[in-house]
Amino acid sequence: MLGIDPGLRRTGWGVIEAVGNRLSFIASGTVTSNNKLELAGRLVQLHDGLARIVQQQLPQEAAVEHTFVNKDAGATLKLGQARGIALLVPALAGLEVAEYAPNLVKKTVVGTGHAEKEQIRAMVKVLMPRAVFDSDDAADALAIAICHAHHRGSMTSRLSKLGAA
Amino acid sequence: MLGIDPGLRRTGWGVIEAVGNRLSFIASGTVTSNNKLELAGRLVQLHDGLARIVQQQLPQEAAVEHTFVNKDAGATLKLGQARGIALLVPALAGLEVAEYAPNLVKKTVVGTGHAEKEQIRAMVKVLMPRAVFDSDDAADALAIAICHAHHRGSMTSRLSKLGAA
Repeated sequence: MLGIDPGLRRTGWGVIEAVGNRLSFIASGTVTSNNKLELAGRLVQLHDGLARIVQQQLPQEAAVEHTFVNKDAGATLKLGQARGIALLVPALAGLEVAEYAPNLVKKTVVGTGHAEKEQIRAMVKVLMPRAVFDSDDAADALAIAICHAHHRGSMTSRLSKLGAA
Repeated sequence: MLGIDPGLRRTGWGVIEAVGNRLSFIASGTVTSNNKLELAGRLVQLHDGLARIVQQQLPQEAAVEHTFVNKDAGATLKLGQARGIALLVPALAGLEVAEYAPNLVKKTVVGTGHAEKEQIRAMVKVLMPRAVFDSDDAADALAIAICHAHHRGSMTSRLSKLGAA
């Protein structure tokens, strides 16, 4: 399954496999857009980058972080635009796209809704020792994929054991 | 040229031709998304509707309204997602996509930045008597296309004459 942490400048992505109670890291990375381009051109870069990943990795499900930025309307609009592309690309490929609030992602992966970025990175490594990521956004995307694996019901026991540890 | 007034529930579109100082209405309409679907599915509906229009009408340029909703972050995020699709679709087809603030659209078409919806509809009809539109969003989209025709430089005189009338 594919997790996506959307952002106009950097969109993180992570692909994992969840078979029964077993999580495996498959791949992760970061799609960037060039902030010297016009907005439409930047959205095309995000689209093309994500479309390539969907094509190469052939995930069967996708999950996108449901972020709220409350800083200002301009930042929220920017994020919304990137998020629109992050939701569209897997849906165009016929995948179901789930959405998870950041707090739920943190709570599922780290055990508390107010985890720091370092805790998320560390816990992603505990759950999938082979995981590598080139940015916090990619680590977050893997956490979103883990959250999805958990909440669609296949791996309750293992994560709750680890979360309690 | 194609004007787009983006919205998650209703995205208006309008196609006009601008040759020298002459504006002609070509087509307009409204792409809707079903609010009973998941967000990703709604964005696919907007994408497919707009992609069909670009394919059928073959516009050479596009312009999208740069709206700000300051109501709340949730509404702004929704709009941003729809706007991401409105910018993406023409850009994927290789079109340049311009952006115009609503005040500039109103000022260009009606002569004041604080025009009511009825004034926009009326002025679109004055400028293009054959124009028909099935929603305020479609009328706004035509106004955005007119604004673009004006600001890319081809028809200064006619519009400023009409604006002063």
